[in-house]
Amino acid sequence: MEPLYEGKAKRLYATEDPNVLRMEYKDEATAFNAEKKAEFENKGRLNTAITLAIYRMLEAKGVETHIVESIDDTNILVKSVDILLVEVIVRNVAAGSFCKRVGVEEGTAFKQPIVEFSYKSDELGDPLINDDYAREMGLATPEECAELKEKALVINEVLIDFFKRAGLKLVDFKIEFGRTKDADAKIVLADEISPDTCRLWDLETGKKLDKDRFRQDLGGVMEAYEEVLKRVEQIS
Amino acid sequence: MEPLYEGKAKRLYATEDPNVLRMEYKDEATAFNAEKKAEFENKGRLNTAITLAIYRMLEAKGVETHIVESIDDTNILVKSVDILLVEVIVRNVAAGSFCKRVGVEEGTAFKQPIVEFSYKSDELGDPLINDDYAREMGLATPEECAELKEKALVINEVLIDFFKRAGLKLVDFKIEFGRTKDADAKIVLADEISPDTCRLWDLETGKKLDKDRFRQDLGGVMEAYEEVLKRVEQIS
Repeated sequence: MEPLYEGKAKRLYATEDPNVLRMEYKDEATAFNAEKKAEFENKGRLNTAITLAIYRMLEAKGVETHIVESIDDTNILVKSVDILLVEVIVRNVAAGSFCKRVGVEEGTAFKQPIVEFSYKSDELGDPLINDDYAREMGLATPEECAELKEKALVINEVLIDFFKRAGLKLVDFKIEFGRTKDADAKIVLADEISPDTCRLWDLETGKKLDKDRFRQDLGGVMEAYEEVLKRVEQIS
Repeated sequence: MEPLYEGKAKRLYATEDPNVLRMEYKDEATAFNAEKKAEFENKGRLNTAITLAIYRMLEAKGVETHIVESIDDTNILVKSVDILLVEVIVRNVAAGSFCKRVGVEEGTAFKQPIVEFSYKSDELGDPLINDDYAREMGLATPEECAELKEKALVINEVLIDFFKRAGLKLVDFKIEFGRTKDADAKIVLADEISPDTCRLWDLETGKKLDKDRFRQDLGGVMEAYEEVLKRVEQIS
């Protein structure tokens, strides 16, 4: 069966229900806009389980997501949504592209979270944009941009507390939203939340437990993801 | 006499009055974050005259600037201000870095102007930032960001009309603001407005009459600047 869509970390398949898709998590890892690639056994399974636990927790806190139900170790049924081409990044501590862009040292804590938008385009490397870009490119209206920021900040508050209980500092994360295809077309959290899309540092040691282990060749990539899943399951 | 500050296109000198500096316009031209350099005879004189005419016109329209008075062909007395490290770019038509960043074709007109901020840092190549970056980096408060956008949009409206009367389309421009050192510390328009800092296309032919002639090796760079000055003087 051919996927409807294949991304860097997941594939989407049609189901018998036109409103529902099957999302399969792959073992492939990519970094630096897919310039660096590798395959990690179990990554699909770990990210499926971590995303499921987090999205169920978020749903319980009133955050609507695209999750319908779990199928197996690497497959989840999700609502068919129109993915917004505005990716939302929330930063609590300076890291990654932020540090490179503006020359601020990694680890610098922000007084208030930074929310930023990037244009979802593999070809262009998901460039940073602002609300005016989103409006003129037809990606999101000013009202939708405000809604995305508001939702992202709520999710950040919930996640900071959740990961803290798991002994993890939420440094930053990237999320994607989709418009449901119902008559009322709501914007819901889509995609995934996992060590592929978050930076998570051990609260006590500062050890990186996320995709930076792959990006920076730190080793123990899947051991870190296993550790995150173990801690997330303990508090779920 | 040593300059207090030397930028890519201008030098700043102290005067007998601690509240006033002398701004000297250089003949040097740089592009692509100073990777490309050249010297153009008369550029300092042309940009001095163009900036003076535009800033006087803006002052008459109620926009406060740093200009005190003209000294000679390449020197202007300006208020001593603390330059904000947030550069403001206003775009009416897609061009330059916008097109490269998001893959939109040059010449695409926007329904409403795009305002963006960049971090004034030669070392980092003046990277695009957003309001949250400005706040956390201590560059400008959210209130100051709103004020910069409001002022930039007012200036844009005035400049669009002004250049239209000169037969020129205002594609985009970069401006800098400074805080005056008075007790009431106002934010005023500083730096310059010239073909170095604006994209200006002939309204009828679309011919580029700005620094893109240098960036893109189109030739006739100073002839274009002369043409802009001639037209600006005709309507001033």
